[in-house]
Amino acid sequence: MLNNFYHFFQANGKISMEEMESLKSLYHREEVKKGDFLLREGGHCHHTFFVESGLIRMYAIDGQGKEHIVQFACENWLLSDRSSAYFDESSDYFIDAIEDSVVVMLDKGFVDGIIEVNPSFQRINERLLHNHIRHLQKRIHGLMAETAEERYLEFINLYPDLTLRVPQWMMASYLGVTPESLSRVRRDLAKRNFKSY
Amino acid sequence: MLNNFYHFFQANGKISMEEMESLKSLYHREEVKKGDFLLREGGHCHHTFFVESGLIRMYAIDGQGKEHIVQFACENWLLSDRSSAYFDESSDYFIDAIEDSVVVMLDKGFVDGIIEVNPSFQRINERLLHNHIRHLQKRIHGLMAETAEERYLEFINLYPDLTLRVPQWMMASYLGVTPESLSRVRRDLAKRNFKSY
Repeated sequence: MLNNFYHFFQANGKISMEEMESLKSLYHREEVKKGDFLLREGGHCHHTFFVESGLIRMYAIDGQGKEHIVQFACENWLLSDRSSAYFDESSDYFIDAIEDSVVVMLDKGFVDGIIEVNPSFQRINERLLHNHIRHLQKRIHGLMAETAEERYLEFINLYPDLTLRVPQWMMASYLGVTPESLSRVRRDLAKRNFKSY
Repeated sequence: MLNNFYHFFQANGKISMEEMESLKSLYHREEVKKGDFLLREGGHCHHTFFVESGLIRMYAIDGQGKEHIVQFACENWLLSDRSSAYFDESSDYFIDAIEDSVVVMLDKGFVDGIIEVNPSFQRINERLLHNHIRHLQKRIHGLMAETAEERYLEFINLYPDLTLRVPQWMMASYLGVTPESLSRVRRDLAKRNFKSY
Protein backbone atom coordinates (compact mmCIF):
# COMPACT_ATOMS: atom_id res chain seq x y z
CA MET A 1 0.00 0.00 0.00
CA LEU A 2 1.04 3.55 -0.70
CA ASN A 3 -0.54 5.22 2.32
CA ASN A 4 1.67 8.32 2.36
CA PHE A 5 1.27 8.80 -1.39
CA TYR A 6 -2.52 8.61 -1.36
CA HIS A 7 -2.74 10.73 1.74
CA PHE A 8 -0.49 13.43 0.24
CA PHE A 9 -2.74 13.95 -2.78
CA GLN A 10 -5.90 13.71 -0.69
CA ALA A 11 -4.61 16.30 1.78
CA ASN A 12 -3.01 18.64 -0.77
CA GLY A 13 -5.29 18.16 -3.76
CA LYS A 14 -8.52 16.61 -2.45
CA ILE A 15 -7.92 13.75 -4.90
CA SER A 16 -9.93 10.69 -3.84
CA MET A 17 -8.58 7.15 -3.61
CA GLU A 18 -10.77 6.22 -6.61
CA GLU A 19 -9.38 9.09 -8.68
CA MET A 20 -5.83 8.01 -7.81
CA GLU A 21 -6.72 4.42 -8.80
CA SER A 22 -8.00 5.64 -12.16
CA LEU A 23 -4.57 7.18 -12.86
CA LYS A 24 -2.50 4.16 -11.99
CA SER A 25 -1.06 3.80 -15.48
CA LEU A 26 0.76 7.08 -14.72
CA TYR A 27 2.71 6.00 -11.63
CA HIS A 28 4.28 2.91 -10.16
CA ARG A 29 5.88 1.81 -6.91
CA GLU A 30 9.54 0.89 -6.80
CA GLU A 31 11.76 -0.45 -4.02
CA VAL A 32 15.25 0.96 -4.09
CA LYS A 33 18.18 -0.23 -2.00
CA LYS A 34 20.59 2.10 -0.22
CA GLY A 35 23.08 3.26 -2.86
CA ASP A 36 20.81 2.62 -5.85
CA PHE A 37 20.65 5.40 -8.42
CA LEU A 38 17.43 6.95 -9.72
CA LEU A 39 19.28 9.44 -11.96
CA ARG A 40 22.85 10.02 -13.10
CA GLU A 41 24.50 13.18 -14.44
CA GLY A 42 24.15 13.27 -18.22
CA GLY A 43 21.04 11.10 -18.12
CA HIS A 44 17.43 12.20 -18.51
CA CYS A 45 15.08 12.51 -15.58
CA HIS A 46 11.88 10.82 -16.76
CA HIS A 47 10.04 10.85 -13.43
CA THR A 48 9.23 12.87 -10.39
CA PHE A 49 9.94 10.81 -7.29
CA PHE A 50 7.55 10.73 -4.35
CA VAL A 51 9.17 9.18 -1.28
CA GLU A 52 6.73 6.76 0.34
CA SER A 53 9.35 5.66 2.87
CA GLY A 54 13.11 6.04 3.24
CA LEU A 55 15.46 8.80 2.18
CA ILE A 56 16.95 9.92 -1.14
CA ARG A 57 19.13 12.86 -2.19
CA MET A 58 20.02 14.93 -5.25
CA TYR A 59 23.62 16.09 -5.72
CA ALA A 60 26.21 17.33 -8.17
CA ILE A 61 29.85 16.27 -8.53
CA ASP A 62 32.38 18.98 -9.37
CA GLY A 63 35.52 18.77 -11.53
CA GLN A 64 37.55 17.61 -8.51
CA GLY A 65 35.15 14.73 -7.80
CA LYS A 66 33.63 16.42 -4.76
CA GLU A 67 29.93 15.90 -4.02
CA HIS A 68 27.57 18.84 -3.40
CA ILE A 69 24.13 17.89 -2.09
CA VAL A 70 21.29 20.12 -3.32
CA GLN A 71 18.34 18.48 -1.63
CA PHE A 72 17.29 15.59 0.59
CA ALA A 73 13.85 13.99 0.34
CA CYS A 74 12.36 11.73 3.01
CA GLU A 75 8.78 10.50 3.51
CA ASN A 76 6.16 12.70 1.76
CA TRP A 77 8.67 14.77 -0.19
CA LEU A 78 8.75 15.10 -3.96
CA LEU A 79 12.10 15.19 -5.73
CA SER A 80 13.00 15.64 -9.37
CA ASP A 81 15.44 17.39 -11.64
CA ARG A 82 12.65 19.53 -13.02
CA SER A 83 14.79 21.09 -15.74
CA SER A 84 15.64 17.70 -17.14
CA ALA A 85 12.12 16.32 -16.71
CA TYR A 86 10.24 19.31 -18.10
CA PHE A 87 12.61 20.54 -20.79
CA ASP A 88 13.97 17.12 -21.69
CA GLU A 89 17.55 18.23 -21.08
CA SER A 90 20.37 16.02 -19.86
CA SER A 91 20.80 16.37 -16.13
CA ASP A 92 23.57 18.06 -14.11
CA TYR A 93 22.63 15.94 -11.12
CA PHE A 94 22.66 12.52 -9.50
CA ILE A 95 19.79 11.15 -7.41
CA ASP A 96 20.40 8.11 -5.19
CA ALA A 97 19.03 6.41 -2.10
CA ILE A 98 20.64 7.01 1.32
CA GLU A 99 18.37 4.41 2.97
CA ASP A 100 16.43 1.46 1.56
CA SER A 101 13.37 3.30 0.24
CA VAL A 102 9.99 2.90 -1.38
CA VAL A 103 9.60 5.48 -4.14
CA VAL A 104 6.57 6.24 -6.28
CA MET A 105 7.71 7.05 -9.81
CA LEU A 106 5.40 9.64 -11.36
CA ASP A 107 5.33 9.74 -15.16
CA LYS A 108 5.56 13.03 -17.03
CA GLY A 109 1.80 12.91 -17.74
CA PHE A 110 0.87 12.43 -14.07
CA VAL A 111 0.10 16.08 -13.24
CA ASP A 112 -1.92 16.51 -16.45
CA GLY A 113 -3.77 13.30 -15.59
CA ILE A 114 -4.74 14.62 -12.17
CA ILE A 115 -5.84 17.94 -13.65
CA GLU A 116 -8.04 16.09 -16.15
CA VAL A 117 -9.71 14.16 -13.35
CA ASN A 118 -9.87 17.14 -11.03
CA PRO A 119 -9.28 20.57 -12.68
CA SER A 120 -8.85 22.36 -9.35
CA PHE A 121 -5.47 20.64 -9.09
CA GLN A 122 -4.14 23.16 -11.62
CA ARG A 123 -4.05 25.82 -8.89
CA ILE A 124 -2.57 23.39 -6.40
CA ASN A 125 0.15 22.48 -8.86
CA GLU A 126 0.87 26.19 -9.36
CA ARG A 127 1.23 26.53 -5.60
CA LEU A 128 3.56 23.51 -5.45
CA LEU A 129 5.72 25.10 -8.17
CA HIS A 130 5.82 28.41 -6.29
CA ASN A 131 6.73 26.54 -3.13
CA HIS A 132 9.57 24.84 -4.96
CA ILE A 133 10.77 28.24 -6.17
CA ARG A 134 10.62 29.48 -2.58
CA HIS A 135 12.89 26.64 -1.43
CA LEU A 136 15.35 27.21 -4.27
CA GLN A 137 15.47 30.96 -3.53
CA LYS A 138 16.14 30.24 0.13
CA ARG A 139 18.85 27.75 -0.85
CA ILE A 140 20.57 30.38 -3.03
CA HIS A 141 20.29 32.96 -0.27
CA GLY A 142 21.81 30.48 2.19
CA LEU A 143 24.70 29.53 -0.08
CA MET A 144 25.52 33.15 -0.87
CA ALA A 145 24.76 35.20 2.20
CA GLU A 146 24.48 33.03 5.32
CA THR A 147 27.04 31.84 7.84
CA ALA A 148 27.56 28.12 8.52
CA GLU A 149 25.53 28.47 11.73
CA GLU A 150 22.58 30.13 9.96
CA ARG A 151 22.60 27.41 7.29
CA TYR A 152 22.68 24.69 9.94
CA LEU A 153 19.69 26.22 11.78
CA GLU A 154 17.77 26.41 8.48
CA PHE A 155 18.62 22.76 7.84
CA ILE A 156 17.21 21.69 11.22
CA ASN A 157 14.11 23.74 10.57
CA LEU A 158 13.56 22.31 7.08
CA TYR A 159 14.47 18.70 7.87
CA PRO A 160 13.81 18.20 11.61
CA ASP A 161 13.84 14.39 11.26
CA LEU A 162 17.06 14.14 9.33
CA THR A 163 19.74 15.25 11.77
CA LEU A 164 20.01 11.68 13.07
CA ARG A 165 19.45 9.95 9.73
CA VAL A 166 21.96 11.79 7.56
CA PRO A 167 25.72 11.18 8.05
CA GLN A 168 27.69 14.21 9.22
CA TRP A 169 29.70 14.49 6.01
CA MET A 170 26.53 14.62 3.93
CA MET A 171 25.08 17.35 6.10
CA ALA A 172 28.34 19.29 5.67
CA SER A 173 28.14 18.77 1.90
CA TYR A 174 24.56 20.12 1.86
CA LEU A 175 25.59 23.12 3.95
CA GLY A 176 28.64 23.82 1.78
CA VAL A 177 31.04 23.69 4.75
CA THR A 178 33.76 21.28 5.87
CA PRO A 179 32.82 18.56 8.40
CA GLU A 180 35.17 20.35 10.85
CA SER A 181 33.22 23.62 10.51
CA LEU A 182 29.98 21.74 11.07
CA SER A 183 31.35 20.16 14.28
CA ARG A 184 32.43 23.61 15.49
CA VAL A 185 28.98 25.07 14.75
CA ARG A 186 27.24 22.29 16.67
CA ARG A 187 29.68 22.61 19.60
CA ASP A 188 29.15 26.39 19.77
CA LEU A 189 25.37 26.04 19.66
CA ALA A 190 25.43 23.36 22.37
CA LYS A 191 27.55 25.59 24.64
CA ARG A 192 25.25 28.57 24.17
CA ASN A 193 22.13 26.51 24.81
CA PHE A 194 23.74 25.09 27.94
CA LYS A 195 24.44 28.60 29.25
CA SER A 196 20.94 29.84 28.60
CA TYR A 197 19.23 27.18 30.73
CA MET B 1 4.34 53.05 -25.16
CA LEU B 2 5.26 49.69 -23.73
CA ASN B 3 6.38 47.96 -26.91
CA ASN B 4 8.56 45.32 -25.29
CA PHE B 5 5.89 44.53 -22.71
CA TYR B 6 3.10 44.05 -25.25
CA HIS B 7 5.35 42.13 -27.58
CA PHE B 8 6.48 39.77 -24.79
CA PHE B 9 2.93 38.68 -23.97
CA GLN B 10 1.98 38.50 -27.64
CA ALA B 11 5.00 36.34 -28.48
CA ASN B 12 4.87 34.16 -25.35
CA GLY B 13 1.16 34.05 -24.68
CA LYS B 14 -0.62 35.07 -27.91
CA ILE B 15 -2.27 37.82 -25.87
CA SER B 16 -3.55 40.54 -28.19
CA MET B 17 -3.06 44.26 -27.68
CA GLU B 18 -6.81 44.62 -26.97
CA GLU B 19 -6.65 41.90 -24.30
CA MET B 20 -3.69 43.65 -22.68
CA GLU B 21 -5.59 46.95 -22.79
CA SER B 22 -8.55 45.31 -21.02
CA LEU B 23 -6.23 44.34 -18.14
CA LYS B 24 -4.68 47.73 -17.63
CA SER B 25 -5.99 48.10 -14.08
CA LEU B 26 -3.58 45.24 -13.22
CA TYR B 27 -0.32 46.85 -14.32
CA HIS B 28 1.28 50.24 -14.57
CA ARG B 29 4.37 51.83 -16.01
CA GLU B 30 6.97 53.37 -13.73
CA GLU B 31 10.19 55.25 -14.42
CA VAL B 32 12.96 54.46 -11.97
CA LYS B 33 16.26 56.27 -11.68
CA LYS B 34 19.61 54.53 -11.27
CA GLY B 35 19.88 53.62 -7.58
CA ASP B 36 16.12 53.67 -6.88
CA PHE B 37 14.79 50.73 -4.86
CA LEU B 38 11.86 48.57 -5.94
CA LEU B 39 12.15 46.29 -2.88
CA ARG B 40 14.10 46.27 0.37
CA GLU B 41 14.98 43.35 2.68
CA GLY B 42 12.25 42.96 5.28
CA GLY B 43 9.65 44.56 3.00
CA HIS B 44 6.96 42.83 0.97
CA CYS B 45 7.21 42.32 -2.76
CA HIS B 46 3.82 43.35 -4.11
CA HIS B 47 4.69 43.21 -7.80
CA THR B 48 6.45 41.31 -10.47
CA PHE B 49 8.66 43.65 -12.46
CA PHE B 50 8.85 43.52 -16.24
CA VAL B 51 11.79 45.53 -17.58
CA GLU B 52 10.64 47.60 -20.55
CA SER B 53 14.05 49.30 -20.76
CA GLY B 54 17.09 49.60 -18.53
CA LEU B 55 18.59 47.20 -16.01
CA ILE B 56 17.69 46.13 -12.47
CA ARG B 57 19.11 43.56 -10.06
CA MET B 58 18.07 41.47 -7.05
CA TYR B 59 20.59 40.92 -4.25
CA ALA B 60 21.07 39.98 -0.61
CA ILE B 61 23.32 41.62 1.98
CA ASP B 62 25.07 39.33 4.46
CA GLY B 63 25.89 39.95 8.14
CA GLN B 64 29.17 41.64 7.14
CA GLY B 65 27.40 44.09 4.83
CA LYS B 66 28.59 42.36 1.68
CA GLU B 67 26.29 42.30 -1.37
CA HIS B 68 25.48 39.06 -3.19
CA ILE B 69 23.68 39.48 -6.50
CA VAL B 70 21.18 36.72 -7.32
CA GLN B 71 19.86 37.95 -10.63
CA PHE B 72 20.04 40.74 -13.18
CA ALA B 73 17.10 41.70 -15.38
CA CYS B 74 17.40 43.85 -18.50
CA GLU B 75 14.89 44.48 -21.32
CA ASN B 76 12.19 41.78 -21.60
CA TRP B 77 13.10 40.04 -18.34
CA LEU B 78 10.72 39.46 -15.45
CA LEU B 79 12.02 39.82 -11.91
CA SER B 80 10.34 39.29 -8.56
CA ASP B 81 10.93 37.84 -5.13
CA ARG B 82 8.34 35.19 -5.82
CA SER B 83 8.38 33.83 -2.26
CA SER B 84 7.50 37.21 -0.89
CA ALA B 85 4.97 37.99 -3.62
CA TYR B 86 3.18 34.65 -3.64
CA PHE B 87 3.34 33.67 0.03
CA ASP B 88 3.17 37.20 1.38
CA GLU B 89 6.38 36.76 3.36
CA SER B 90 8.87 39.49 4.16
CA SER B 91 11.71 39.46 1.67
CA ASP B 92 15.35 38.41 2.12
CA TYR B 93 16.26 40.54 -0.88
CA PHE B 94 16.77 44.02 -2.29
CA ILE B 95 15.82 45.01 -5.84
CA ASP B 96 17.21 48.25 -7.29
CA ALA B 97 17.97 49.89 -10.62
CA ILE B 98 21.50 49.80 -12.06
CA GLU B 99 20.48 52.08 -14.95
CA ASP B 100 17.62 54.55 -15.38
CA SER B 101 14.84 52.14 -16.30
CA VAL B 102 11.22 51.84 -17.35
CA VAL B 103 9.58 49.05 -15.38
CA VAL B 104 6.07 47.63 -15.74
CA MET B 105 4.72 46.79 -12.29
CA LEU B 106 2.45 43.74 -12.49
CA ASP B 107 -0.08 43.36 -9.70
CA LYS B 108 -0.58 40.04 -7.95
CA GLY B 109 -3.80 39.47 -9.89
CA PHE B 110 -2.18 40.04 -13.28
CA VAL B 111 -1.55 36.38 -14.18
CA ASP B 112 -5.07 35.39 -13.08
CA GLY B 113 -6.40 38.28 -15.17
CA ILE B 114 -4.62 37.06 -18.29
CA ILE B 115 -5.84 33.50 -17.69
CA GLU B 116 -9.41 34.75 -17.41
CA VAL B 117 -9.11 36.57 -20.71
CA ASN B 118 -7.16 33.77 -22.36
CA PRO B 119 -7.26 30.38 -20.53
CA SER B 120 -4.44 28.91 -22.59
CA PHE B 121 -2.09 31.20 -20.66
CA GLN B 122 -2.37 28.79 -17.71
CA ARG B 123 -0.05 26.37 -19.53
CA ILE B 124 2.27 29.17 -20.59
CA ASN B 125 2.49 30.38 -17.00
CA GLU B 126 3.32 26.83 -15.91
CA ARG B 127 6.11 26.81 -18.47
CA LEU B 128 7.39 30.19 -17.23
CA LEU B 129 7.45 28.82 -13.67
CA HIS B 130 9.34 25.72 -14.79
CA ASN B 131 11.76 27.91 -16.66
CA HIS B 132 12.34 29.95 -13.52
CA ILE B 133 12.99 26.73 -11.61
CA ARG B 134 15.47 25.73 -14.30
CA HIS B 135 17.40 28.98 -13.86
CA LEU B 136 17.42 28.66 -10.07
CA GLN B 137 18.65 25.05 -10.28
CA LYS B 138 21.43 26.11 -12.63
CA ARG B 139 22.34 28.96 -10.27
CA ILE B 140 22.60 26.52 -7.34
CA HIS B 141 24.67 24.13 -9.42
CA GLY B 142 26.96 26.98 -10.41
CA LEU B 143 27.42 28.27 -6.87
CA MET B 144 28.13 24.80 -5.50
CA ALA B 145 29.94 22.86 -8.17
CA GLU B 146 31.44 25.15 -10.80
CA THR B 147 34.76 26.93 -11.11
CA ALA B 148 34.95 30.71 -11.50
CA GLU B 149 35.64 30.23 -15.22
CA GLU B 150 32.62 27.98 -15.74
CA ARG B 151 30.41 30.49 -13.92
CA TYR B 152 31.74 33.34 -16.02
CA LEU B 153 31.03 31.46 -19.26
CA GLU B 154 27.49 30.72 -18.05
CA PHE B 155 27.04 34.40 -17.25
CA ILE B 156 28.07 35.45 -20.77
CA ASN B 157 25.72 32.85 -22.21
CA LEU B 158 22.76 33.94 -20.04
CA TYR B 159 23.34 37.68 -20.27
CA PRO B 160 25.23 38.31 -23.54
CA ASP B 161 24.36 42.03 -23.50
CA LEU B 162 25.40 42.70 -19.95
CA THR B 163 29.18 42.25 -19.94
CA LEU B 164 29.61 45.88 -20.96
CA ARG B 165 26.69 47.29 -18.94
CA VAL B 166 27.42 45.76 -15.54
CA PRO B 167 30.39 47.03 -13.49
CA GLN B 168 33.12 44.45 -12.84
CA TRP B 169 32.52 44.32 -9.10
CA MET B 170 28.83 43.52 -9.63
CA MET B 171 29.69 40.75 -12.04
CA ALA B 172 32.12 39.35 -9.45
CA SER B 173 29.40 39.57 -6.79
CA TYR B 174 26.99 37.64 -9.03
CA LEU B 175 29.64 35.00 -9.73
CA GLY B 176 30.55 34.70 -6.05
CA VAL B 177 34.24 35.43 -6.69
CA THR B 178 36.57 38.33 -5.90
CA PRO B 179 37.09 41.01 -8.58
CA GLU B 180 40.74 39.81 -8.73
CA SER B 181 39.63 36.24 -9.55
CA LEU B 182 37.31 37.57 -12.23
CA SER B 183 40.16 39.57 -13.84
CA ARG B 184 42.32 36.45 -13.79
CA VAL B 185 39.58 34.37 -15.43
CA ARG B 186 39.10 36.94 -18.20
CA ARG B 187 42.87 37.21 -18.75
CA ASP B 188 43.22 33.43 -18.96
CA LEU B 189 40.34 33.12 -21.41
CA ALA B 190 41.70 35.95 -23.57
CA LYS B 191 45.13 34.26 -23.71
CA ARG B 192 43.65 30.91 -24.71
CA ASN B 193 41.44 32.45 -27.37
CA PHE B 194 44.46 34.28 -28.75
CA LYS B 195 46.40 31.01 -29.06
CA SER B 196 43.56 29.18 -30.74
CA TYR B 197 43.27 31.64 -33.66
